[in-house]
Amino acid sequence: MGNPTAAILVIGDEILSGRTKDKNIGWLAEQLTSLGIQLAEARVIADQHTVIVSHVQSLSRAYDYLFTSGGIGPTHDDITTAAVAAAFERPVERNSEAMARLIRHYENTDIDFNEARQKMADIPQGARLIDNPVSAAPGYQLENVFVMAGVPSILQAMFATYSHRLTGGTPPLRITVQCQTGEGNIAGILAAVTEEFSGISVGSYPWFKPGQFGTAAVVTGLDRTIVEAASQSLLEQVIAAGFGAELDS
Amino acid sequence: MGNPTAAILVIGDEILSGRTKDKNIGWLAEQLTSLGIQLAEARVIADQHTVIVSHVQSLSRAYDYLFTSGGIGPTHDDITTAAVAAAFERPVERNSEAMARLIRHYENTDIDFNEARQKMADIPQGARLIDNPVSAAPGYQLENVFVMAGVPSILQAMFATYSHRLTGGTPPLRITVQCQTGEGNIAGILAAVTEEFSGISVGSYPWFKPGQFGTAAVVTGLDRTIVEAASQSLLEQVIAAGFGAELDS
Repeated sequence: MGNPTAAILVIGDEILSGRTKDKNIGWLAEQLTSLGIQLAEARVIADQHTVIVSHVQSLSRAYDYLFTSGGIGPTHDDITTAAVAAAFERPVERNSEAMARLIRHYENTDIDFNEARQKMADIPQGARLIDNPVSAAPGYQLENVFVMAGVPSILQAMFATYSHRLTGGTPPLRITVQCQTGEGNIAGILAAVTEEFSGISVGSYPWFKPGQFGTAAVVTGLDRTIVEAASQSLLEQVIAAGFGAELDS
Repeated sequence: MGNPTAAILVIGDEILSGRTKDKNIGWLAEQLTSLGIQLAEARVIADQHTVIVSHVQSLSRAYDYLFTSGGIGPTHDDITTAAVAAAFERPVERNSEAMARLIRHYENTDIDFNEARQKMADIPQGARLIDNPVSAAPGYQLENVFVMAGVPSILQAMFATYSHRLTGGTPPLRITVQCQTGEGNIAGILAAVTEEFSGISVGSYPWFKPGQFGTAAVVTGLDRTIVEAASQSLLEQVIAAGFGAELDS
């Protein structure tokens, strides 16, 4: 059986306008990969109810897990919860545990726990809360969808509280062969190694620095023996073709 | 009439594994916004033929423009061109102008213009070449799809060669009101301003620094008079509520 699959849905006009640069896709991608969960797709979409509903439905059906970021704060543009609830035809209700956490968080501050902030305790019926160690207002899991804040520090803290509950798979082993030549010179070797060894993929990532260039050939797979054999074969063939190459440590 | 719409399709396993962090979505988002082209959606997908074909078809039909990044190099994992051609049921052919550019680029180097590199002259029939001022191998436009390299410096140089040909719209005006308070304290004001002024959106972006926090309230719209009136009203209401606030210069 293959690894579990996942998608990421980044919800926010500020990413699409370019005002804010997304950092959540790259961070979550690394985390999921290390858990053996295969990130199959990531999308950035606008703060629009029908758009969010439709993407939540299609991605949660297509993959084992869906992780969302953004749109669960106290203001009028925070519409993720209403949309996620609608996607699963659930009502939104004021969650008493979420209320208790927010009351505790605000009680010894001079911050007014007003109606806007109370909205952060509105959670789809039947959802399981996700702890927010940074600012209390919880995320939640509904079916296979994990709804998190968009602020990267909060999203990261939230993910850490539940990632051990995710069903992971075999983390892929990745071995990089650094080749001191352009990818065009080793394209035949990369294709041959990909053909010869089953269950691996070989990525070719050229890089450039002033006065220098090279190619990172990245062998990825789930079986350590095969990945090691394939990267060793790749290394030897690149050297035999007359180019410098070494395993990246 | 609204502004033209666009989507971005980032093609690459290395982004989904977290090995490489995407920089193209954020950069293109800023460029498109400044041209008055509304970026409606961005997706990151895997290097798989059927996946690429299906996303190219659906996004190119849904939006006025589609911009892709990645997968047009010389190696076996560069499969974007075959997939884009298949999406429009066009054959791929060796393009004589692309060949001429590559021959010129390599002729005074010690780089072998081998079969792998010649593959970079394979272009869908009927496509219009996009110049590559960095490394010669062209991108191309097929129908409303603009196919570019994934390396950010090359993508940016390519975009600059044709962006003047895109049909833009009215670049949105964006005025930021920096508020020295949490977003929960001004949520009512933000919602009221959004209600009162038509044709604008108000985004609320809380920020945190050691010992400090605040909210950037961002008023966006296509009509300067309305955006200015709305942000002025927002500023005055936040100050009247007893919080520090100023227009971001």
